[in-house]
Amino acid sequence: MKNLPETFLPALKNELKKQVARVDETHTAEYHKMLTYHMGWVGEGAGAKASGKQIRPLLLLLTASATGGEWANALPAAAAIELIHNFSLLHDDIQDNAETRRGRLTVWKKWGVAQAINAGDGIFILANLAMGDLKEKYPAEIVLDAKRTLQETCLSLTRGQHLDIAYETRANIEIGDYWQMIAGKTAALLSTATELGALLGGADEKLRFTYREFGHYLGLAFQVQDDLLGIWGNEAETGKSVSSDLLEGKKSLPVLYGLEKNGKFAERWKKDALTEDEIPEMAHLLEVEGARLETQRQADQMTEFALNALRTANPQGEAGDVLFELTERLLGRAA
Amino acid sequence: MKNLPETFLPALKNELKKQVARVDETHTAEYHKMLTYHMGWVGEGAGAKASGKQIRPLLLLLTASATGGEWANALPAAAAIELIHNFSLLHDDIQDNAETRRGRLTVWKKWGVAQAINAGDGIFILANLAMGDLKEKYPAEIVLDAKRTLQETCLSLTRGQHLDIAYETRANIEIGDYWQMIAGKTAALLSTATELGALLGGADEKLRFTYREFGHYLGLAFQVQDDLLGIWGNEAETGKSVSSDLLEGKKSLPVLYGLEKNGKFAERWKKDALTEDEIPEMAHLLEVEGARLETQRQADQMTEFALNALRTANPQGEAGDVLFELTERLLGRAA
Repeated sequence: MKNLPETFLPALKNELKKQVARVDETHTAEYHKMLTYHMGWVGEGAGAKASGKQIRPLLLLLTASATGGEWANALPAAAAIELIHNFSLLHDDIQDNAETRRGRLTVWKKWGVAQAINAGDGIFILANLAMGDLKEKYPAEIVLDAKRTLQETCLSLTRGQHLDIAYETRANIEIGDYWQMIAGKTAALLSTATELGALLGGADEKLRFTYREFGHYLGLAFQVQDDLLGIWGNEAETGKSVSSDLLEGKKSLPVLYGLEKNGKFAERWKKDALTEDEIPEMAHLLEVEGARLETQRQADQMTEFALNALRTANPQGEAGDVLFELTERLLGRAA
Repeated sequence: MKNLPETFLPALKNELKKQVARVDETHTAEYHKMLTYHMGWVGEGAGAKASGKQIRPLLLLLTASATGGEWANALPAAAAIELIHNFSLLHDDIQDNAETRRGRLTVWKKWGVAQAINAGDGIFILANLAMGDLKEKYPAEIVLDAKRTLQETCLSLTRGQHLDIAYETRANIEIGDYWQMIAGKTAALLSTATELGALLGGADEKLRFTYREFGHYLGLAFQVQDDLLGIWGNEAETGKSVSSDLLEGKKSLPVLYGLEKNGKFAERWKKDALTEDEIPEMAHLLEVEGARLETQRQADQMTEFALNALRTANPQGEAGDVLFELTERLLGRAA
């Protein structure tokens, strides 16, 4: 990796802190604390790991630079997209009843569901206000265009979330449903990161669309890769316990392929929840029935689509090189 | 009342339906159903009563007209403010554990907390998208100004909500805390309704601020009035059971005055939750200890402030007359 991310990340953090400081008032100090805790800046376990990888804002800034724009001008949009990501995680944790996130207690676990819903709403609003700050550097028409693009993405996120929650209790999920769901839950925000980067970098309609395609397939590839790691990953690398997806009964892509095979895996899966000692055998069944290979093929295909789009976009300069490197690294292809 | 609201309300409903239709897709038909149910348009008990009074969008359209603008141009903003109101109610119902709203089951009660959080997020996003539609009739700079004003209000809403939730478990609430809380929870959205109406009607900065003041005090007066009705109101008129606020232990303004008096009411209140048969006696104690009168004085004062601001704003035409009538009716002063 070149050192561009090392330049971008401290500037991004400054911008994020400036945006979140809007709620830092005497009467609502505790509210501000919830947000800064969730962002990973304060409280037990605060630090770089607690803030996540910030892939989305990084992609946005790199794309703005690789299309010939001044990356620093796009910082409010980069902050906005990271805030949107964090808003969706905060509400997601309540919806999933998740007690920890990045190794720390979740906001609802610390402050209760009512305050956590409100804190998530607040982060979303801060993202919208951050977008408004773009007007200091861009014409009003561009800002409105960027704002609309982001809101449409947010609507897609809620569509994906709706399907995700609905699928938990629905028995007959098919592979088509899976793609619908992850298009909203994972790909929408990544495709908007690269699209906004291109828009703010000065790209024309066609190039903007190509960057959108790149982000979209990167998101799909990333999610399918994540599904593979959720069953066959290495705990030390991913921070998830291996096969935790099977234990949680998550209808990830390998499981859906396994159900489609209608073999021994499907037979056992349909009965009731798996127990911990069954997990290695079930992961093995999935593999011998071919579900791992088919999932890997999908990951490879989506990765190819993403790289093709990026080649077509032909990103310029150092940021262009980093975009290729970041993509390969995200999709587990780095040397 | 003049017949202007009868012209505005059907146009508003059309606009709202158009905005909410953005989620009406094959894969997410159930998601669309949650939103249209919450808006009072479909499902058991659907109808005018289930949609609420729509005071906020009405105020916005009346102000736009009374400042010389074309009310129909402001419809997307009117829809947005009604959607924001509904988003906050939806999340509020989860936070308050409220099983009914306007006599119907709440969204979380019907579809579960996870889907309800997501549905609330969706309504908020629809409001933001609605605001973007203003660009068909207004310059981009005005649209950005309107959008920022609305988002700042939303942040105030979450501040008020944060305080409201925090106060439920805090013993020592003072009267200053009360005004902070209702400024966010109630007055913020009303002041933005009138401010946006003035902005979109073409008012200058000074007039815009006067309309904002009008909405602010109208909101405060309305909330204090509501607190009075929550203890001494008539169930048939308000749709609430009389004294339900006392039974719920709500720290409304009369209760805070009662606690300040530190008399028999305060002594009993501090012990534990009231039982239903104690309510009439406790309401009586509040009254003889002077809390009802002091609350009424505050309501009268805020009402005077609101009417003074409206007189200063000097609203024009039929819409101007209706603004005065609506204010008097809302604050229980109609003949």
